[in-house]
Amino acid sequence: MRDLPPVLRVFSGLLVLFALSLAAPLLTAVVTGDGLWPSYLTSLLVGVAMGAALFWRLRAHRQELQPRHGLLLVCAVWVLLPLYACLPILLVAAQLDYPLSFLGAYFEAVSGLTTTGATVLSGLDHMPASLNLWRTFMQWLGGMGILILAVAILPMLGVGGGQAFRAEVAGPIKDTKLTPRITQTAKGLWAVYLSMSVACFLAFWAGGMGALDALMHMFATVSLGGLSAYDASFGQFDSPLLETIAMVFMLVASCNFALYFVAMRKHDLRRIWADVEMRATLTTMLLGGLLVSVYLWIMDVYDLPHALRFGMFNTISIASTTGFATTDYLAWPVFAPLLMLLLSCMTASAGSTGGGIKMLRLLILLQQARRELVRLAHPRVINPVRLGQTVIDNHVIFSVLAFVLFYVAALVLLSLLLVLSGLDLVTAFSAVLASLNCMGPGLGVVGPASSYAVLNDFQLTVCTVAMLLGRLEILSMMVVLMPSFWRR
Amino acid sequence: MRDLPPVLRVFSGLLVLFALSLAAPLLTAVVTGDGLWPSYLTSLLVGVAMGAALFWRLRAHRQELQPRHGLLLVCAVWVLLPLYACLPILLVAAQLDYPLSFLGAYFEAVSGLTTTGATVLSGLDHMPASLNLWRTFMQWLGGMGILILAVAILPMLGVGGGQAFRAEVAGPIKDTKLTPRITQTAKGLWAVYLSMSVACFLAFWAGGMGALDALMHMFATVSLGGLSAYDASFGQFDSPLLETIAMVFMLVASCNFALYFVAMRKHDLRRIWADVEMRATLTTMLLGGLLVSVYLWIMDVYDLPHALRFGMFNTISIASTTGFATTDYLAWPVFAPLLMLLLSCMTASAGSTGGGIKMLRLLILLQQARRELVRLAHPRVINPVRLGQTVIDNHVIFSVLAFVLFYVAALVLLSLLLVLSGLDLVTAFSAVLASLNCMGPGLGVVGPASSYAVLNDFQLTVCTVAMLLGRLEILSMMVVLMPSFWRR
Ligand SMILES: [K+]
Ligand SMILES: [K+]
Repeated sequence: MRDLPPVLRVFSGLLVLFALSLAAPLLTAVVTGDGLWPSYLTSLLVGVAMGAALFWRLRAHRQELQPRHGLLLVCAVWVLLPLYACLPILLVAAQLDYPLSFLGAYFEAVSGLTTTGATVLSGLDHMPASLNLWRTFMQWLGGMGILILAVAILPMLGVGGGQAFRAEVAGPIKDTKLTPRITQTAKGLWAVYLSMSVACFLAFWAGGMGALDALMHMFATVSLGGLSAYDASFGQFDSPLLETIAMVFMLVASCNFALYFVAMRKHDLRRIWADVEMRATLTTMLLGGLLVSVYLWIMDVYDLPHALRFGMFNTISIASTTGFATTDYLAWPVFAPLLMLLLSCMTASAGSTGGGIKMLRLLILLQQARRELVRLAHPRVINPVRLGQTVIDNHVIFSVLAFVLFYVAALVLLSLLLVLSGLDLVTAFSAVLASLNCMGPGLGVVGPASSYAVLNDFQLTVCTVAMLLGRLEILSMMVVLMPSFWRR
Repeated sequence: MRDLPPVLRVFSGLLVLFALSLAAPLLTAVVTGDGLWPSYLTSLLVGVAMGAALFWRLRAHRQELQPRHGLLLVCAVWVLLPLYACLPILLVAAQLDYPLSFLGAYFEAVSGLTTTGATVLSGLDHMPASLNLWRTFMQWLGGMGILILAVAILPMLGVGGGQAFRAEVAGPIKDTKLTPRITQTAKGLWAVYLSMSVACFLAFWAGGMGALDALMHMFATVSLGGLSAYDASFGQFDSPLLETIAMVFMLVASCNFALYFVAMRKHDLRRIWADVEMRATLTTMLLGGLLVSVYLWIMDVYDLPHALRFGMFNTISIASTTGFATTDYLAWPVFAPLLMLLLSCMTASAGSTGGGIKMLRLLILLQQARRELVRLAHPRVINPVRLGQTVIDNHVIFSVLAFVLFYVAALVLLSLLLVLSGLDLVTAFSAVLASLNCMGPGLGVVGPASSYAVLNDFQLTVCTVAMLLGRLEILSMMVVLMPSFWRR
């Protein structure tokens, strides 16, 4: 238990920063005059006070963090911060007389900070702008955290084979201690993330969105979160231009941010396209979108231009685990949404804010499967697993495989729980998959035209657990729950 | 291509033996006077003639078989023998004026020889006894082949981690050459299989079945095939005694036959219960059955005695991949059939005639997952994967993982194909899973009260491929399809 104080000390700092970010909806509430400012102000003050008090109590525990602290910290951030983030949501709901349970609020907060973008709220069009801003802003903040998690922390800990791209980031960063390394990496990644955010906001704005809409949908796009301020999601704008802009930014944001960062440092953009994972991610999304479009055209759902417009946007949105929709694609023949859901399991890059198994792991798995076939045909051939020029170590393959095992096990067990609770098989399976992939809309009654509000508290809890497991790459959460983790 | 002649030479011998086994339905046809003897006799003669001609042509190719020949031989046996086995089925169908396509007949033959037990025929109660005898007898013959495949051939080739129990069989068998080893193993396994068959037949007969019913249902039980002579499957007998007998034999037949064989040789029955996999298989089936029974009781589907009777029998039948049913369990709340289907993926032992991932592989996977968690918590601890007393080599783990990858990939891709062909998601997924596990009945429209006759030719082909992939442990079939396999 002596691991907890130094971790909580860092966490308390993050809590203060997170509470301060409530200034954004507070400001919006004041400007729009929706009368919700007391909720945000109270929450802000409570958060700052709690964080400061915790920080003060633990001031003696300033020490260098070890890798095991990293595991504890990421669990604390994604499990405990949403607990605090419930406060403004519940206060606002109370002010609006909107019925919302604590579990519903926690679901909403986890969904935001994990960039899942599933929602239990309906009637978004009539919600005050300050609330929608806060919901989408949480995704953007979550995205900042996820980048550090995915590029710096999990690879350093060797969670789920992330070691495979450790070398990539280690290149420009020489420091070997945990905190300075993470700090340096964070600065670089956030520079990329901020530039992308500014570009996306300006593009949406120039493309015809109002400033507030542009801001909120930029938050949801570059973080691959996919929450919209409208029940009709991105379909609200009905604009091929805006859809194209969103597609470009979803494609860009689905790739490894460490690549952009390294390419910027070395002033060498060719490095980006040389990356095997990046090419695979982009190819999968574009070919997947094309396949769905052609299928929709063949099945006479749309004429060719509309098939391309709807097929490409919704497939790229789901495959990148963003989760925007421009139409209720559950009305399409079931092969299309099923393929899109399948793509969401494996398309996003390992260093992005996307979810699922990640393309890097898929490539390693495919190479490992190929190696086994070659070994059977020619037992004496030496035959390492390669990714581009890099030979992948057996340890990495084992980590990747453990990750996939836990992923499948979580999918099966959580789906069974939902079926046991009375949901039909398709809804249960797709809700767990969409949550585990931090994607958002599922099939059945949790589809893009519906919301998670139809689920009861137990079912919401299962989905919340799935989002957390998916975001923490399962293993980080499992290991902290092991009793032997706490024995030194 | 020079690998083919020695393999086809052995295959031609097996073809002759298989053709001669048509003597059984021929005799039944003569005794019952159903007039179908010309179909069986013609088929028998054609098979013997083809086999003998092939054998004669290849008489010069008598040579010691290499492991790669083993891969080719198992593919030839399960892909080509059913092709010949279509002949009597189609001739009988023609004599009976029963409409049956070639693909339907091939499906039926593959289903028999892989001990899947799915059927495209309906109105079984009115089929001539000789045909039902032949269908169930094919399962029993298939079981003989599968035992050799699972205990001797695949482990020797290292397919899917079968190396893990190679030592177990290698114990009593000293010869290191392929053919004599396999011959010796075969004799031992078949002695076990025959004893079990005789015991099962006598038990069914003593329990009240007619001699012919006892014979046919013995064939389907000890092979874990699950084809019945009745549309109501095992429910036809409505006898708790017979159901109990069947349960005992399904439990016994789900365990590793090599264990029984070694225990018999060493006159030491304690070895059997000492086996980790065996205990896990039996525990899973019994606890699974109990769980389903209690669930049915809680959900008020039955009173407690009936819940136990129906829950235990159907769960053990599905988990062991037999596929008998005593009621239409799709009428139960969906959690129960779903859990049963899930158990069928992983309960049967690696050295049995069952299908799916197999308990041995599951145990190795669980150990590997545990190892990865321990490594994350304590990076410096050395931490091998153990099964009982045995340390599992990394090569074995890699093989197991490759198997599971292909299993999941086959499941996903073949399900997508069925969805693309117009089936609903639940039917598509469960039909592929039931075929891949060589189990039989699925959910949706291919449930226990229905048959695969509702599928069209394309859908039947997909299921046939799934049965073959499942039976040949996927990798054996994939490797033979690789172009590089044919380059030396
Ligand atoms: K999302
Ligand atoms: K079966």
